[in-house]
Amino acid sequence: MLERFLVPEKDRVLVRPERMLAATKAIFEKCGQSSTDAALSAEVLLTSDLRGCESHGVSNQLRVYVQMYGDQEINPVPNLQITRETDVTANLDGDTGLGLHVLPKAMEIAIDKADKHGMGAVTVHNSRHIGMLAYHSMMPLKYDMIGITTSAGNPLSMVPTHASEKLFATNPWAWAAPARSEAPFVFDVATTQVAGNKLRLAERIGAPMDPAWISDTDGVPIMNETHLPDDYHILPFGGTREQGSHKGYGFAAMAEIMAPILSGMGAGMFMAPVPRTIMGHYVQAVKIDGFIDPNQFKDDMDRFLKRLRTSKPASGEKRVVYAGLPEAEEVEIRQREGIPYHKEVIGWFESIKAELQLDFELV
Amino acid sequence: MLERFLVPEKDRVLVRPERMLAATKAIFEKCGQSSTDAALSAEVLLTSDLRGCESHGVSNQLRVYVQMYGDQEINPVPNLQITRETDVTANLDGDTGLGLHVLPKAMEIAIDKADKHGMGAVTVHNSRHIGMLAYHSMMPLKYDMIGITTSAGNPLSMVPTHASEKLFATNPWAWAAPARSEAPFVFDVATTQVAGNKLRLAERIGAPMDPAWISDTDGVPIMNETHLPDDYHILPFGGTREQGSHKGYGFAAMAEIMAPILSGMGAGMFMAPVPRTIMGHYVQAVKIDGFIDPNQFKDDMDRFLKRLRTSKPASGEKRVVYAGLPEAEEVEIRQREGIPYHKEVIGWFESIKAELQLDFELV
Repeated sequence: MLERFLVPEKDRVLVRPERMLAATKAIFEKCGQSSTDAALSAEVLLTSDLRGCESHGVSNQLRVYVQMYGDQEINPVPNLQITRETDVTANLDGDTGLGLHVLPKAMEIAIDKADKHGMGAVTVHNSRHIGMLAYHSMMPLKYDMIGITTSAGNPLSMVPTHASEKLFATNPWAWAAPARSEAPFVFDVATTQVAGNKLRLAERIGAPMDPAWISDTDGVPIMNETHLPDDYHILPFGGTREQGSHKGYGFAAMAEIMAPILSGMGAGMFMAPVPRTIMGHYVQAVKIDGFIDPNQFKDDMDRFLKRLRTSKPASGEKRVVYAGLPEAEEVEIRQREGIPYHKEVIGWFESIKAELQLDFELV
Repeated sequence: MLERFLVPEKDRVLVRPERMLAATKAIFEKCGQSSTDAALSAEVLLTSDLRGCESHGVSNQLRVYVQMYGDQEINPVPNLQITRETDVTANLDGDTGLGLHVLPKAMEIAIDKADKHGMGAVTVHNSRHIGMLAYHSMMPLKYDMIGITTSAGNPLSMVPTHASEKLFATNPWAWAAPARSEAPFVFDVATTQVAGNKLRLAERIGAPMDPAWISDTDGVPIMNETHLPDDYHILPFGGTREQGSHKGYGFAAMAEIMAPILSGMGAGMFMAPVPRTIMGHYVQAVKIDGFIDPNQFKDDMDRFLKRLRTSKPASGEKRVVYAGLPEAEEVEIRQREGIPYHKEVIGWFESIKAELQLDFELV
């Protein structure tokens, strides 16, 4: 993550991961989730915070979920049903359940099919936000499988290349592949220039937007460094056409096709408007053994990833990393030292603790 | 394609597609390919030229292939063998055959598996250049399937984010999804800022590079508009880290993992150096019927794609397109009016015709 998204030192409160996990689980239980689902939902958010992806951890997301449960926009006890199935594919009705605990069940089905047949993929319709995609894509790693996740729906924030209207959500993709001794390759990105949650994070810590991150409401890219205006669209990654925004737009469209459209919901742009978050998801597990010996694969991955991280940096740069490496390093640091939250986030936990009459202790 | 890559009008020679197809087939036959493989190889190149992707058509590629056949770097009559297989996966030894005709056979296997089980994927090792990826990804469309293709290997041209060394080829991805009345969605991109072939095309027509398309040999992005220097690295899409080059780098790494590594060749950075082009490939076919009724899917795709192309353009822009739409329009124009080639390309065909004692007529 870029430096500008880090919580400034003066505003940091360090919290032990297990304490935040317990508090988050208690909140999800109070929202009506079963104890098992609450534990899973909390784990997804805390995995994000431990990896340094606080944009998708408890800071931004939890209060939104609590509000949606309060407004009865999320079903805390969804009845998941497979609506269509083949040897290696399935479509799952999410029954308006939160993606945090619905999608791991979809990925488990995909893993099971991949184990039996070599590959498995599951779409989920009628679901809600899934948190950090990397969590789901990493699930197959321990079975020597590659994991793929994408998700799309509503609300809309991204303007297609040369358009003036918001027609996509941030439509992220995540891929994970195992290694032996190196940290696994875990690549998780929005197809916008920045994740929507990171804009909110930047707003909270007063960080500016870069040129070509957002457009005005006529779709014209804003090419100077700026603070977040009241109304704007987020550009696809690439920013301008000359810098390849058609690539961000294309990967966003593929997310739309693989998740809501392939799951039978139709594109997010035709769904009910903000603030109701409706999403379709797609997960895939690829069994390495269906192609080559997994031991050879993991040895080749080690050699590949090591070569990347030990390559000579560009003039002025300190090091070269690969996707998943800084996050794995951050997990070690944060498990040891605690997770740094913005004091405003801790304040929210204190207020929700009082409101919901919970008894966790964060610090 | 950006305007700058079009052949200037004064240098254009219009050629009927069927004439160029016959000439190209004759050249491939002279290189030792069977009549069937030569027809297929020619079709892949001409599909590219018809779609307006001349970077991957006969102009740049054919002379390279001819040279490689002459240097015995490509096996004209490869003995394709499946080295590992499950219900839905396979790994194919390409026996150093040209990807143009090897990869369609891999995709046929993937389609057959998808038809039986819901999904199929095939890796190919020990192969050569596959031309325009879109050709392969479009093969499953007529069976109501989604097609996915990626490829990676050697020679190297792309520098990872913050690195100073070229460690990737242009590592492209292509996705195709069918619609009913709208042109299908066909998204085919290099994970570099520009395809390597487009740089050569731009060089021929004297077009400049944009800022952040390439770096100097220390890995520092060149931020002014410039003509192609003698020595340079191509940046991942995004260009600079602030503009998201880690996304291009990540998709490039995933191509490396899914194609050469998963096919058992190891990463392209460890292969023998330029000019020997060695590549691993990955193709996947996804049967829509495994998730939802394909009729519903195609109706939803029509609605989605029409909404994109009829959305209000940004101030100053004429229209909004989606990936595959301009290419489908170009096919209609070029089938009617002929394909515009640079006169230098026609000159090459005349010289190779004399050299190989062929008797085609282009104009």
